[in-house]
Amino acid sequence: MADSRDSKIVIIGTGLIGASVGLNLMARKDRKYEVVGVDRSRQNARAAREAGAVDRTERYLDEALRGASMVVLAVPARAAEDLLPIMEPHVGEGAIITDTCSTKASFMAKAHEVFGNKVSVIGGHPMAGSERSGPAAASVDLFQGAAWAITPSPVASESAVRVVVGMIEAAGAVPTYVDPAEHDQIVAAVSHVPLLLSVALFKLVRDSAAWEDAEQLAGPGFRDMTRLVMGDPEMATDIVATNRESILSWLRRYQGELDTIIEALELNEEGVARLAESLKSEDEDMDDELPSTPDGLMEGLLSRARFERFMFDDRTVGRQVPKEGTETPRSGEMIGQMFMGAYLYGRLKEQLRRGEEREEAALRRSGQRPR
Amino acid sequence: MADSRDSKIVIIGTGLIGASVGLNLMARKDRKYEVVGVDRSRQNARAAREAGAVDRTERYLDEALRGASMVVLAVPARAAEDLLPIMEPHVGEGAIITDTCSTKASFMAKAHEVFGNKVSVIGGHPMAGSERSGPAAASVDLFQGAAWAITPSPVASESAVRVVVGMIEAAGAVPTYVDPAEHDQIVAAVSHVPLLLSVALFKLVRDSAAWEDAEQLAGPGFRDMTRLVMGDPEMATDIVATNRESILSWLRRYQGELDTIIEALELNEEGVARLAESLKSEDEDMDDELPSTPDGLMEGLLSRARFERFMFDDRTVGRQVPKEGTETPRSGEMIGQMFMGAYLYGRLKEQLRRGEEREEAALRRSGQRPR
Repeated sequence: MADSRDSKIVIIGTGLIGASVGLNLMARKDRKYEVVGVDRSRQNARAAREAGAVDRTERYLDEALRGASMVVLAVPARAAEDLLPIMEPHVGEGAIITDTCSTKASFMAKAHEVFGNKVSVIGGHPMAGSERSGPAAASVDLFQGAAWAITPSPVASESAVRVVVGMIEAAGAVPTYVDPAEHDQIVAAVSHVPLLLSVALFKLVRDSAAWEDAEQLAGPGFRDMTRLVMGDPEMATDIVATNRESILSWLRRYQGELDTIIEALELNEEGVARLAESLKSEDEDMDDELPSTPDGLMEGLLSRARFERFMFDDRTVGRQVPKEGTETPRSGEMIGQMFMGAYLYGRLKEQLRRGEEREEAALRRSGQRPR
Repeated sequence: MADSRDSKIVIIGTGLIGASVGLNLMARKDRKYEVVGVDRSRQNARAAREAGAVDRTERYLDEALRGASMVVLAVPARAAEDLLPIMEPHVGEGAIITDTCSTKASFMAKAHEVFGNKVSVIGGHPMAGSERSGPAAASVDLFQGAAWAITPSPVASESAVRVVVGMIEAAGAVPTYVDPAEHDQIVAAVSHVPLLLSVALFKLVRDSAAWEDAEQLAGPGFRDMTRLVMGDPEMATDIVATNRESILSWLRRYQGELDTIIEALELNEEGVARLAESLKSEDEDMDDELPSTPDGLMEGLLSRARFERFMFDDRTVGRQVPKEGTETPRSGEMIGQMFMGAYLYGRLKEQLRRGEEREEAALRRSGQRPR
């Protein structure tokens, strides 16, 4: 088998992601490369080979890297960064280095610092995973239909980028070009913060006196909202450490969103009327259309969010947007009115934010530190 | 068909839940009852009949209720309560009334006020659903394996309770007896608050400048965490209105949990050391075991939560608890140590809570209202 393979791809880290990448690489028809796996755990490496994710395993990093045409780093972000200087002496000029880490800015910066122009570094991050971990959980379909963020270094060669894009597309994923810092901000919002929100919900209920009964009654909704808790804690800790600022920034904004929802829940009809007045004073066209009850505000917010969520599904998954008329017959006018409460919610959010800004400004003026 | 049926079950509200109940009732072998559907929407009623969820539909409530042996109220909670006095003159003595509403205390109180001893009221709430709504989305399997909360009135007859339990079990669900007020507290935690947390997350990201890119990169985690947004907004608004106090109470506690997570993220090694000291001063056995880094705290919290979440799945779904050793070889001692960080997290939470209580007490003493 060795003589028909004239190049070598090395996967460092043969856990769930690394082994799934390996399964895809091994599945390529008429492949001319050998796939070699390296893992700090002999057990993981062996399991990856037995699962058919690599042709063979290599115990020593320098041996593995010698003559490698491409290296895939599928280890936690800090481990990946720590490995770069250790790898450097053994990686040949013009080689391709890519990764699957959950954060990109720090890794790309370190890679540039270590390698300069010597190799083509193309950062990557498949937006897929599983609550299971380890090579036994790997699957050739793991990345099917998933977005795969790609952050090529400015000095990476075009042919190197094409190789990585080819690997991504062969795995059924969608290469999605993004700036490394923007990537980190975005995944904080759609991936890292959701994990922490999930942990907070689960801990809150699990640690409460109500747990014995709650456990009996909890349904699919609670399970969905706490599934992320089942992910790999080592990887999650690593992510939190490498994306702390973005995560904190989004968490505070999330707290603001919750504050708004709480305010909305506490509104009475008078409060809703005041909000409506405040909006109308800015936009006369809104007259007569805004709901006048707390229910109207809430239903408007939920209807709008639901519509937008179905549109998101529709664009990314291809499911049909629900036709409002078939489930609950409403006139076109009523459908439009259904969303109007969302404008009241937006106004409330704006007022709260301005209120907080005024508070913080006052604190600063009085010499105290804002929260 | 009519002459072989000697009793009548009436389903008021033939949407997703009502029609799914109907499908189950219609599927009973050798059934001796007729299933009659009533819905404010002629379209929904017709669709339910065409889906095979009811034998026939009835336009007029009094006609439908005449001679009914059991009535299933499958409409939003406030509508159900409003219907009770309207139903009363037409429901015969000894009839069974059950419901599927998402809150129980208010409904049971109203039913007692309206009916007294005249009928057997057995409150019910199937912990199942779908992001789809309407009779076309109904399924005979909707309740399979789901918990179904049951709150029999103290004056309900035993035979009536057996009938309702029989209906629940025939649908594949698990009858779960609970006090109405406790039920409302619990579902606020495991169902209603998760919905609002989901809405907050989706709105936060959807309304942000990052949405265009976030939409491309959002993966299964974000989808799971925002799936609840796709539920019926009318039903959700009704739930929020009828369970407001419980929801607000849990939301504030959730904010406290998020505050703790934010504090944990902002800790440096010195902060972690102080926490550890504070714990050790109370429990000398903890000496030498507590982690000394922010990473240690975070990984402890996440590991413990993950373990508990798998145990929850295992008990309720029957899946296997992951064997730590097979995925990431660790010694038994290391596994134990992995959880120690969770104690530090618990200490931090306690300190924050006490800090807030001192603040509120101080505010009260100075004559101001706590937040």
